[in-house]
Amino acid sequence: MGLPPEVTIRDVGPRDGLQPEPPLAIDDRVSLVRALTDAGLRHVEVAAFVSPQAVPAMAGAAEVVASLDRCPGVTYVALVPNQRGAEMALETDIDELTVTISVSETYNQRNVRMTVEESVAEIAAVCALSSPTPVDAVVSCSFGSPYEADVGPAKAVALGGRLLDGGATRITYADTTGMATPRRIAELGHALGDAPGDVGLHLHDSRGTALVNAYAALELGLTRFDTAVGGLGGSPFAHGAGGNLATEELVALLDDLGVTTGVDVDRLVTAALMVEDLIGRPVPSGVAHVGPRTRVAPNA
Amino acid sequence: MGLPPEVTIRDVGPRDGLQPEPPLAIDDRVSLVRALTDAGLRHVEVAAFVSPQAVPAMAGAAEVVASLDRCPGVTYVALVPNQRGAEMALETDIDELTVTISVSETYNQRNVRMTVEESVAEIAAVCALSSPTPVDAVVSCSFGSPYEADVGPAKAVALGGRLLDGGATRITYADTTGMATPRRIAELGHALGDAPGDVGLHLHDSRGTALVNAYAALELGLTRFDTAVGGLGGSPFAHGAGGNLATEELVALLDDLGVTTGVDVDRLVTAALMVEDLIGRPVPSGVAHVGPRTRVAPNA
Repeated sequence: MGLPPEVTIRDVGPRDGLQPEPPLAIDDRVSLVRALTDAGLRHVEVAAFVSPQAVPAMAGAAEVVASLDRCPGVTYVALVPNQRGAEMALETDIDELTVTISVSETYNQRNVRMTVEESVAEIAAVCALSSPTPVDAVVSCSFGSPYEADVGPAKAVALGGRLLDGGATRITYADTTGMATPRRIAELGHALGDAPGDVGLHLHDSRGTALVNAYAALELGLTRFDTAVGGLGGSPFAHGAGGNLATEELVALLDDLGVTTGVDVDRLVTAALMVEDLIGRPVPSGVAHVGPRTRVAPNA
Repeated sequence: MGLPPEVTIRDVGPRDGLQPEPPLAIDDRVSLVRALTDAGLRHVEVAAFVSPQAVPAMAGAAEVVASLDRCPGVTYVALVPNQRGAEMALETDIDELTVTISVSETYNQRNVRMTVEESVAEIAAVCALSSPTPVDAVVSCSFGSPYEADVGPAKAVALGGRLLDGGATRITYADTTGMATPRRIAELGHALGDAPGDVGLHLHDSRGTALVNAYAALELGLTRFDTAVGGLGGSPFAHGAGGNLATEELVALLDDLGVTTGVDVDRLVTAALMVEDLIGRPVPSGVAHVGPRTRVAPNA
């Protein structure tokens, strides 16, 4: 079908996924990360070095990283909001950092209380102090903003270019509130040009479009995706903040399309059901509940 | 993007969607149909002439059809399971019938207590007695069965051909338990050949794939889809029986892709929220809750 032979998946469930939830015990967060690496994931966002007052679910980031039951070959990633967060993260043995910035001025100011220009400078400073630890800059609202009409893939790619110039290792374009469609993904591809390089997509499912957007991106040759086990993330109360693309739904689809992920979907379903137990309510993912298409009905 | 300029959507919410729910009042079912036609839908499956003992939610089919607040240009459709159901339906002023058959022998026997061969004969008899009222034959498990490994699009298309020979007006291939992927949709396209004719797809979202399958079908030039307002349908307790593709999620996507549906997504969201009130719990659709991407955040 002309799709790439393999893709790289970063599970952001233990960070972006758990962030809006009531805080879990450190041990449970560590066990979840281990369940994900046992399923074959080689990139996992495990913590955020943010204020525990602002984000109670992310308290104890250093302890999480110190407690990781490490697997060889896995890149453990942490989000840092600024230089102070980066300093704290770099005191641990974290492998890579993520930073965020929004192409939407309003969203950026509400999210990190900086202008976009201030965030560009802050990210350059984070990259400088973190080197040689890689820094992935996540550009939120890359496919639209609930606040401004004039943001979109072209503006996001221009901002991504500035972040690479400022020292970011790679860029991940985020559909923060589920506004992407295959048309917007194509616009991103057009803005990136013939040599997209190491470009990732971070997709949310607010409007049911996360998987179709991933598929459209695959058709364009993009091969790096952020997902969250169970489809965790977002909030039923925040406008447009739906959960992340569910890791097991992407893997189940790619398995049938013949695209290699290195991830075992059945083990991933086990991890999703572990999350369900931990948070005490059903996760949004369908595959978590009915399994991949290859699973025969239990009562057949 | 090389997509068809327009598509036809049949909302099956008042039938396939409400079927597994506790019974609603006739007036509420009629109001829902009216809300859908007010939103611009021109094909609505409004009732099933089945045993009220077997499917309590579909009791009063004749009364529903008699009570319809009819809009000009709308095709009102009813499901019939056999000749007896067709006779009852034809005593009303219904415009079109749907019949079902499964390409899976086990599924067919469990669903309608006939072998596939018996169903082929029964459908031919229904077509004969219904003429000139059109009959749409819905072929379930067209993309896989939870019971048998050897079913799939090629076998479904062969069965569809026999149903057309037996007098069916058109065929709709159904992904009854959410087993389709773009690869399976491509297999359907291949089996249909260069002249697919009036082929419809009936997609369920058990594994989060309904929208990506619709998109893959559009890329192949298919232009007729069954959906259900709110993503109604299925059952959380039956293996793989997830809800239908949500009408408003398909329309919201197609609006952004520039594909004409004739449906007003905001009115459709109103209908989805009406359904939510009627059934007393949230519908699965994301667009029902956050609106299309064009909607600005209420608190922006």
